[in-house]
Amino acid sequence: MTHPSEQSPPPGIRARLHEIIFEAETPAGKAFDVALLWAILLSVLAVMLESVAPIRAQYGQVIRVAEWVFTVLFTVEYMLRLFSVSRPWLYARSFYGLVDLLAILPSYVSLMLPGAQSLLVVRILRLLRIFRVLKLVSFLGQAEVLLTALRASRQKITVFLLAVLSTVVIMGSVMYLVEGEANGFDSIPRGMYWAIVTMTTVGFGDITPKTVPGQFIASALMILGYGVIAVPTGIVSVELAAATRQGINPEACPGCGAEGHDVDAVHCKFCGTRL
Amino acid sequence: MTHPSEQSPPPGIRARLHEIIFEAETPAGKAFDVALLWAILLSVLAVMLESVAPIRAQYGQVIRVAEWVFTVLFTVEYMLRLFSVSRPWLYARSFYGLVDLLAILPSYVSLMLPGAQSLLVVRILRLLRIFRVLKLVSFLGQAEVLLTALRASRQKITVFLLAVLSTVVIMGSVMYLVEGEANGFDSIPRGMYWAIVTMTTVGFGDITPKTVPGQFIASALMILGYGVIAVPTGIVSVELAAATRQGINPEACPGCGAEGHDVDAVHCKFCGTRL
Amino acid sequence: MTHPSEQSPPPGIRARLHEIIFEAETPAGKAFDVALLWAILLSVLAVMLESVAPIRAQYGQVIRVAEWVFTVLFTVEYMLRLFSVSRPWLYARSFYGLVDLLAILPSYVSLMLPGAQSLLVVRILRLLRIFRVLKLVSFLGQAEVLLTALRASRQKITVFLLAVLSTVVIMGSVMYLVEGEANGFDSIPRGMYWAIVTMTTVGFGDITPKTVPGQFIASALMILGYGVIAVPTGIVSVELAAATRQGINPEACPGCGAEGHDVDAVHCKFCGTRL
Amino acid sequence: MTHPSEQSPPPGIRARLHEIIFEAETPAGKAFDVALLWAILLSVLAVMLESVAPIRAQYGQVIRVAEWVFTVLFTVEYMLRLFSVSRPWLYARSFYGLVDLLAILPSYVSLMLPGAQSLLVVRILRLLRIFRVLKLVSFLGQAEVLLTALRASRQKITVFLLAVLSTVVIMGSVMYLVEGEANGFDSIPRGMYWAIVTMTTVGFGDITPKTVPGQFIASALMILGYGVIAVPTGIVSVELAAATRQGINPEACPGCGAEGHDVDAVHCKFCGTRL
Repeated sequence: MTHPSEQSPPPGIRARLHEIIFEAETPAGKAFDVALLWAILLSVLAVMLESVAPIRAQYGQVIRVAEWVFTVLFTVEYMLRLFSVSRPWLYARSFYGLVDLLAILPSYVSLMLPGAQSLLVVRILRLLRIFRVLKLVSFLGQAEVLLTALRASRQKITVFLLAVLSTVVIMGSVMYLVEGEANGFDSIPRGMYWAIVTMTTVGFGDITPKTVPGQFIASALMILGYGVIAVPTGIVSVELAAATRQGINPEACPGCGAEGHDVDAVHCKFCGTRL
Repeated sequence: MTHPSEQSPPPGIRARLHEIIFEAETPAGKAFDVALLWAILLSVLAVMLESVAPIRAQYGQVIRVAEWVFTVLFTVEYMLRLFSVSRPWLYARSFYGLVDLLAILPSYVSLMLPGAQSLLVVRILRLLRIFRVLKLVSFLGQAEVLLTALRASRQKITVFLLAVLSTVVIMGSVMYLVEGEANGFDSIPRGMYWAIVTMTTVGFGDITPKTVPGQFIASALMILGYGVIAVPTGIVSVELAAATRQGINPEACPGCGAEGHDVDAVHCKFCGTRL
Repeated sequence: MTHPSEQSPPPGIRARLHEIIFEAETPAGKAFDVALLWAILLSVLAVMLESVAPIRAQYGQVIRVAEWVFTVLFTVEYMLRLFSVSRPWLYARSFYGLVDLLAILPSYVSLMLPGAQSLLVVRILRLLRIFRVLKLVSFLGQAEVLLTALRASRQKITVFLLAVLSTVVIMGSVMYLVEGEANGFDSIPRGMYWAIVTMTTVGFGDITPKTVPGQFIASALMILGYGVIAVPTGIVSVELAAATRQGINPEACPGCGAEGHDVDAVHCKFCGTRL
Repeated sequence: MTHPSEQSPPPGIRARLHEIIFEAETPAGKAFDVALLWAILLSVLAVMLESVAPIRAQYGQVIRVAEWVFTVLFTVEYMLRLFSVSRPWLYARSFYGLVDLLAILPSYVSLMLPGAQSLLVVRILRLLRIFRVLKLVSFLGQAEVLLTALRASRQKITVFLLAVLSTVVIMGSVMYLVEGEANGFDSIPRGMYWAIVTMTTVGFGDITPKTVPGQFIASALMILGYGVIAVPTGIVSVELAAATRQGINPEACPGCGAEGHDVDAVHCKFCGTRL
């Protein structure tokens, strides 16, 4: 699978290819991105449809052919990417490089190991390649604000999750004691699964308390979960408000170059220079 | 169905009709709106009740008669609307024009195609006509603030939905692999349906994980969904706060330039200058 | 049931009784409130326990006796209230007056109409009397802030509920068409019930979509409901923030007496007087 | 179980032990905390796994041995704690002292009372010891902000919970009347359990309304619960915003008196005065 022309391409072709494949400023680059987006979506759709028994029975042949067309296309694309970057090995080991490889590898492996059908589901990870394409468009700014808010609330959310998980462990054990195996709570992990289902207000109903004390404890847990959902929401709201406000003032201090001033700031809060 | 008098109505009648049918300032216009509101609500109720088998068996005749009374009333109203606007074709192609047509068409079509009973359910869209009536009342301002907030958070919500949908696709595939057909996860789309049911904390319980690894992955997904619901709430809160603030007062103080005054403020709250 | 001494009580006794029964400033008034609170809670507990078949079988006699003790106590209290207010008829027709009457009436009626057992459940409304007692304590301020926020967001929440209900009607009709009677969607109202169960993320699972298009539509509705829950939360957060902020500044303008100034206000926003 | 050397330890050893066991500033103290954290997590995992029947059948012996190793370790640690503090009795009666005792007691009691197997589940409370270790690390500040917000909103949340519980009692009674025993609502407490399951949007589906009026009332309750969840979220958001703001900077500018500066601010952002 070594590319023969990799040793000596005219530098112009390499740069041009890089521009088309990795950038989106030129019309060719944009067209490439749009085509790639469709190829990814269609190939993910093919993987999904192949898993549906009646569709596989009727259109299995068509889907397999489409699948190989996408695999060959993505293989060519992967090689072009390797070829157009100046340090191929660095790209191959990067996150997107690995996702690009994972998008084509299962098809080839399934040729050699005919039994490894379940491996084909790994191809669904091609979906992650969408983010590579989207990375280049205007949504990035919004995603950045969201990520800043989530990053800023990371510690608070950890504390919150720790409290939730402790409640889950203790409540799961209590219900294992109170309800017992006869009512489906046949181990502490099963009780914890039930506690998570209940506290997150999902409530599948596959395991439910049958005894009166069990239903009483469950009621308390539900009201707790109902009130507790307010905490992450409050955390994210506050951080998001901060991130949005910050995002509004993009200018740096003319005196010391510091950024991140509030919108209503008249003087730099670090050096006192008038903004 | 051409209206004979459409060519030469005295302009006074046309303007008067327009005022009654499209506006709500005059007593006659208000009375028309209230009557229309009741007619819409009653006709929607009739469509609902007709779908209930025991009621259809006993009161079918009454409902069918009421249905035709409403259809004739709405037909007359539709013609008057066509007649009273200066450019009928533009009205007929507008959103509300189409809704008005959809409100009467199914009844007539069902006369010609007696088999198309299911078409009659389309009449439920008459409900949308309510918004035409409400468009004229004071709730509009509040709806505007809500819509402004939603519009402003459109991009953030798109990013959020993209992340949710990717999680759904990948989690649905993982559960299809882990649980398999025996436990109800018989295809990737079915797994995705389950992932949406779980992540949105709806939790029907029609498909639930039975294996230990499946329940472990489900627990992780539930806690993720529980935490992630905080994100849209945070987004909307922040934008709604901004929209409310904006909607309230956009002008700065002529004295000190401070902003953010209440709508009812006469003097600047910082320097006392008259606004 | 006329009170013979109603015509001529010494005014001192009347005023003293009013102070004890209706106020909570004096030690006697506080003791009365605490005793009333316990009587209400215990009588509500008795109504609850009487509805549990095994408990009724074993302790039925005890509960019935306790029930009559509470009924007589509340009857005496009701008469004392009638007696101690200056305009008994106005009190009897007020909200709390009716609740006080409802708390004792079912027991007497069940004596005359022995079959009206289900009427006894009405006694659970005694619970509402708790709010009469709590009205007098310090929680009132907090409840006021909450109510102010809810009142301020009333219009926005109405617009929101209108949008939710329209979605419910249309989605319920669509599912009635798509899934049909065979899958439990046997009428439009049933479909609407399902749509509410789904959109509010309750998800009982008593009715679930079985067909592929039905599950697809359900998925869309769930994601919509998941996102839409952000709206009332945002509304209440914003209004609550406003109500809390308002609540912080209790002082009136020395110039014009207007209230409701922001905490950071230096001048009255109406007349410009320095605060 | 008295420690013979408790009467006369060299004060240096005692102080050194206290530093290692109770503090986390020294390398030895940090190493002790990390080791303790792992011991707690592993012993909790052992309790969990022992409750799973197949694992108990196969690895029961290993788990029991591990269990006793942890018990002996925690016993030694408990004694060292008693020994290293200056007032052992005060420590023994403190919250963490009791948790430390509860972590080792069940194992010894189960030796004497062989039937008390269910007592062993109490060992899961060892999990609470994690918070002792975490108390010493940097997450504390974040937890403090969260707790401040929850404390500040305590009264509002009490009012909210009171309203929710009253709704639950009344709705549970109404459904007991409307649906009756035949549909699973066999007592008022059962109806209240259902009302909590529904209003918190958990929706197990173990009890569901079957009659038309029951489904109508349930729909109203669901929409109420859906809207009402906005209230605690709003409360916590507002208080969290206040706590975050407070936690950040309480001091006013010496120049102009403006407040609300960031923690990292050196100059006032309004007038430029050095803070």
